[in-house]
Amino acid sequence: MPVRLHHIVIDAHDLPGLARFWTQALGWKVLSEREREVVIGPDENAPVGMCFMPVTDPKSVKNRMHLDVTTSAQDRDQEIERLLALGARRADVGQTGAESWIVLADPEGNEFCVIRPKQTLIR
Amino acid sequence: MPVRLHHIVIDAHDLPGLARFWTQALGWKVLSEREREVVIGPDENAPVGMCFMPVTDPKSVKNRMHLDVTTSAQDRDQEIERLLALGARRADVGQTGAESWIVLADPEGNEFCVIRPKQTLIR
Repeated sequence: MPVRLHHIVIDAHDLPGLARFWTQALGWKVLSEREREVVIGPDENAPVGMCFMPVTDPKSVKNRMHLDVTTSAQDRDQEIERLLALGARRADVGQTGAESWIVLADPEGNEFCVIRPKQTLIR
Repeated sequence: MPVRLHHIVIDAHDLPGLARFWTQALGWKVLSEREREVVIGPDENAPVGMCFMPVTDPKSVKNRMHLDVTTSAQDRDQEIERLLALGARRADVGQTGAESWIVLADPEGNEFCVIRPKQTLIR
């Protein structure tokens, strides 16, 4: 009997603020909001959502786990601009610039990559 | 046009080994395996999978992003034992022991929580 993936949990300083960024980035909704836990997801019955929990320590190193997001639009540049306008920033994790992905960070510095449009999990 | 969550990416030393742990933990499959990228998922058409990419730097701090997994069985203890046998270990992130979740770490030290059985994303 395997376990089931349920939440991607992100340590945060500003829970509502970071949750808002990711709902806007992914087109998701806030599903529950408490002082010490904000949950977002596509909807309540979706298998996987994100959860924000409070920490006081600052982010210190490149995250060892990060998210890859993909666009359905042909024009990825437009989507990058939208994410930057929402509060993302460009991040340097040692990429050369020749890669097919763009590295951004969310408003609390969590790196994520915008990759080429994908239909399936196989690259 | 929002972006879509595609991969949860984990920096790894032993890509096939860590991929094997997570496929066994989640009941997933290896979908593609290359020297510098191993992708796993429930199946090729699932919206979200995991991807392992090589790094040389050691894990140094508690991950700022982690996974919550849930059991469908009533007996969570049995599932914890199964995960420990697969290579997980118990991890101390400052929990008191009174929480409803159990903190484990995968074979490369990435913390994850086994939470109570859930039907929906709302806790």
